[in-house]
Amino acid sequence: MTPAPDTTAGQPGRPRAALADGRWSSSTIRDLLDHSRQPGMISLAGGLPADEMLPAELLRDRAAAVFDHHGARSLQYGPTMGEPVLRELLAALESVHPDDLVITAGSQQALDLVTRTTTEPGDVVVIEAPGYVGALQVFRAAGLDIVGCPVDAHGLDTSALEELLAAGVHPSVVYVNPNHQNPTGASLAVERQAHLRRLADRHRFLIISDDPYREITFDRPAPCPEEGLHPATSSQVVLLGSLSKTLSPGLRVGWCSGPSAVVTRVQLAKQAADLHTATLNQLLAASMLSDHRWWVHHLQALRISYRDRRDRLADAVHRHLPEATLRSQTGGFFVWLELPGVETDGLLDRALAEGVAFVPGSAFSADDRPTSELRLSFSQAPLDSFDEAVRRLAAAIG
Amino acid sequence: MTPAPDTTAGQPGRPRAALADGRWSSSTIRDLLDHSRQPGMISLAGGLPADEMLPAELLRDRAAAVFDHHGARSLQYGPTMGEPVLRELLAALESVHPDDLVITAGSQQALDLVTRTTTEPGDVVVIEAPGYVGALQVFRAAGLDIVGCPVDAHGLDTSALEELLAAGVHPSVVYVNPNHQNPTGASLAVERQAHLRRLADRHRFLIISDDPYREITFDRPAPCPEEGLHPATSSQVVLLGSLSKTLSPGLRVGWCSGPSAVVTRVQLAKQAADLHTATLNQLLAASMLSDHRWWVHHLQALRISYRDRRDRLADAVHRHLPEATLRSQTGGFFVWLELPGVETDGLLDRALAEGVAFVPGSAFSADDRPTSELRLSFSQAPLDSFDEAVRRLAAAIG
Repeated sequence: MTPAPDTTAGQPGRPRAALADGRWSSSTIRDLLDHSRQPGMISLAGGLPADEMLPAELLRDRAAAVFDHHGARSLQYGPTMGEPVLRELLAALESVHPDDLVITAGSQQALDLVTRTTTEPGDVVVIEAPGYVGALQVFRAAGLDIVGCPVDAHGLDTSALEELLAAGVHPSVVYVNPNHQNPTGASLAVERQAHLRRLADRHRFLIISDDPYREITFDRPAPCPEEGLHPATSSQVVLLGSLSKTLSPGLRVGWCSGPSAVVTRVQLAKQAADLHTATLNQLLAASMLSDHRWWVHHLQALRISYRDRRDRLADAVHRHLPEATLRSQTGGFFVWLELPGVETDGLLDRALAEGVAFVPGSAFSADDRPTSELRLSFSQAPLDSFDEAVRRLAAAIG
Repeated sequence: MTPAPDTTAGQPGRPRAALADGRWSSSTIRDLLDHSRQPGMISLAGGLPADEMLPAELLRDRAAAVFDHHGARSLQYGPTMGEPVLRELLAALESVHPDDLVITAGSQQALDLVTRTTTEPGDVVVIEAPGYVGALQVFRAAGLDIVGCPVDAHGLDTSALEELLAAGVHPSVVYVNPNHQNPTGASLAVERQAHLRRLADRHRFLIISDDPYREITFDRPAPCPEEGLHPATSSQVVLLGSLSKTLSPGLRVGWCSGPSAVVTRVQLAKQAADLHTATLNQLLAASMLSDHRWWVHHLQALRISYRDRRDRLADAVHRHLPEATLRSQTGGFFVWLELPGVETDGLLDRALAEGVAFVPGSAFSADDRPTSELRLSFSQAPLDSFDEAVRRLAAAIG
């Protein structure tokens, strides 16, 4: 019973702790959250909803009502697909059939499960460049070959995608945020959505349409889901949705909907991953969404509040950073700046020293290459701190 | 823009919906839950806690207190490792350092993340035969080669494991339920725990010690975690824990603790998997656990209640199935029966027709081979239904 010599470390049976190095990577943004908690720091880094837009008092009362109505059921195991009452409500919002919708622990879990059940390591995934950091993490963890495709003011450049395809890139998945994309705020133009659907049909890739910001649309009605990238218009589309930007991120309620073959696989993978999404959270979300009048009113209040925040931040940028190019925003939580001649990875340390946090452009691409771009979030910092935040940023640029 | 011919279906870029067939499999038990909801059916199939042991009224009031105290924080994004207050409380229960503990969406997620970050497809995992169905699902999904090792009245037969190792089996992971194992109810004898630790040191495999039933110990004090399979006694041990059997399964709060290299990997994988466990649920769990007097009293009440249920079910088995061999139970939620000469897969259909559900032994092994064994759960069915349930089972045997 003596310990084995170190030579066993190379055997098949050794612990594999070292094998996964680099596949799972920490998000710059999550790491920045720690910096953001330093006293005096103004953070325009994280994409958190404003505290004052989270309906805590109402949810407090609704939670009590859920316990009163459902009793121990609120605390029991539930079905892997999700609570039927919430699936009905979300399916109606998404214009899909409830049988084709699985509730997940936020849309992040939906993305992870769809990716892991529809790709194999080594497959190619195309993502907007710049694109969502959490998607890059999932694709890296799944061992995918990540190819960036440019985003402009009208969203993913589908002509550039077509060129990639013509050049021999064979993606299994193309991932997009169709509305108010993270990080640039761009929305995918209607004609590009149609183009993307045609390319998916022809080249047989899955479109993952991750759409958490749809309802946070400022100056026009929020788009109808069935008129965009939607299972009804293409059998190659998987929709991901989330209540994190509209109701509460901490409840961790999201969903996915798409072809039944994909939904079935996601359900089976979810059994192994966590059995089901928390019961209380689903019943609480259903209680809120079923109050249609409140929900419509709440979404209107969110749009007005976040639009005011966007305006205030844009004003501060114009005032303190006249040389910056600010991409026009139609919704969401972020503005995207270009600072000609400034390398924003290096700028971050100086900005943190001045007391302001942002996310440099390099965080949003698979190659981590430094850029002259950066993302500012207007969703959470105190409204009256925006002017000072951008003043500090200008001071850091020097 | 015409659709591509079907021949593209074989290209690398096609949707991979078909690739994962067989890796994700539905659990017999989850499927049986549907049967169990039929009117008149008595289910001894699922491992759900008794509704009356879920402290719904108290949690109702504590949820309100959490909202009152934390406000919007209860609904915000939180740290991937978990809420510090809950990590402190759970680390104290587990006798580990809070830095070495990650909170997960139930211990099921902990098992999935530990498995995916410490193994590679094709690696060997050893599991108790019979063993936990949810673990079999995770190991299949991870593409592992599953090897069963017998369980007797003293838990995993570590001498049989030593023979497997000597015969050239090189596991990356050995998975055990150390206390009141699912499905047999056996606990791993102290000398076998020591033997298993020595084998892990010598053969360099990770021990995943999944311990949801520790506190549901009937006739002796619940074991101290640090005296069993524990990171303090072996650098090869990862502990998984859960509040699903003691507080509420629907809250989805579990954890894992182990070597810092494993904990770091689990945290990174959890970022990609779902960002973090629901904030409200963690704060609610912390509120309950921090009330030490209530918690100790609640655990005592659970032990008494589930022991009564075990006694009642065992009585019914002795009365109606005198030919059955009933393994003696020291805790947990299940009894394990052997019915000499009865093939329990075939028995299930006849039992369902008689109005009683159970889980056949085949569900608990990787090879699905029919056996003469079955699992009866005493945790959830109405106490006064046990006699009738076993009478129906006897009638199905004929």
